Amino acid sequence: MTNKPQNPMEMALALAEEAARNGEVPVGAVVVHEGEIIATAANQMKALGDPTAHAEMVAMRKALEVVGSGRLAACDLYVTLEPCTMCAGAIAHAKIRRVYYGAEDAKGGAVDNGVRFFNQPTCHHKPEVISGLMESKSAKLLQSFFLDRR
Amino acid sequence: MTNKPQNPMEMALALAEEAARNGEVPVGAVVVHEGEIIATAANQMKALGDPTAHAEMVAMRKALEVVGSGRLAACDLYVTLEPCTMCAGAIAHAKIRRVYYGAEDAKGGAVDNGVRFFNQPTCHHKPEVISGLMESKSAKLLQSFFLDRR
Repeated sequence: MTNKPQNPMEMALALAEEAARNGEVPVGAVVVHEGEIIATAANQMKALGDPTAHAEMVAMRKALEVVGSGRLAACDLYVTLEPCTMCAGAIAHAKIRRVYYGAEDAKGGAVDNGVRFFNQPTCHHKPEVISGLMESKSAKLLQSFFLDRR
Repeated sequence: MTNKPQNPMEMALALAEEAARNGEVPVGAVVVHEGEIIATAANQMKALGDPTAHAEMVAMRKALEVVGSGRLAACDLYVTLEPCTMCAGAIAHAKIRRVYYGAEDAKGGAVDNGVRFFNQPTCHHKPEVISGLMESKSAKLLQSFFLDRR
């Protein structure tokens, strides 16, 4: 990582930058439990050959191993990009308390875009959502990644 | 498994029965590639302490390892229960060709219920869906599981 992360979203951004250097879509995620970072991940779809290996999924699975209770009810998730439909579903299953995300994703997001899953009657757990945290840095990272690949 | 499975959905049902015996919500999933079963899984949420370890997720990840191309575009998924929002998102990411499912899930399903993800503009891959395959057997298994637990 390039900078010493000061807070969870800075850490998530550093992970996203690392992902970009590895040729992965630059998204990073961090799980915090009682003020402590207990799990981190960058996107690993390319490295694992697994299109479900989104940063949030990987970070939540790691956090579940740490917590050991089968749920993340006392945990907050920081992720640089608005979670997709799969990840929103997983966040609800894991009962994440609060989701902080950076950039909105009009094409693939499922929190404030798309299916807006947390507002649907079939969503059995609705986390608190705080959006726009370090939004422009996260968005710029994604934009320059996709521009470079053209 | 109790019976010799004759076809993928019978195999999925046998996995669901096995899940029930292990105290897991009885859902089973099978991935087929060119007529061959390449991955199978039962729900493992309880065993793994991971609420995202749905049968479909686990089976698809196994299949991705087998196929090695990062997508399951030539694969069909057989699952005994209508996939949830998380799994529907994962199915779209993995580009599964065809989804066969057993029982509908009015409360948690996301294919023909809930967010109907495959019909949404933010869904970037819409598999063919065949529902109701061995529906009553799958539904009865789930019903008796939840009745037993009351």
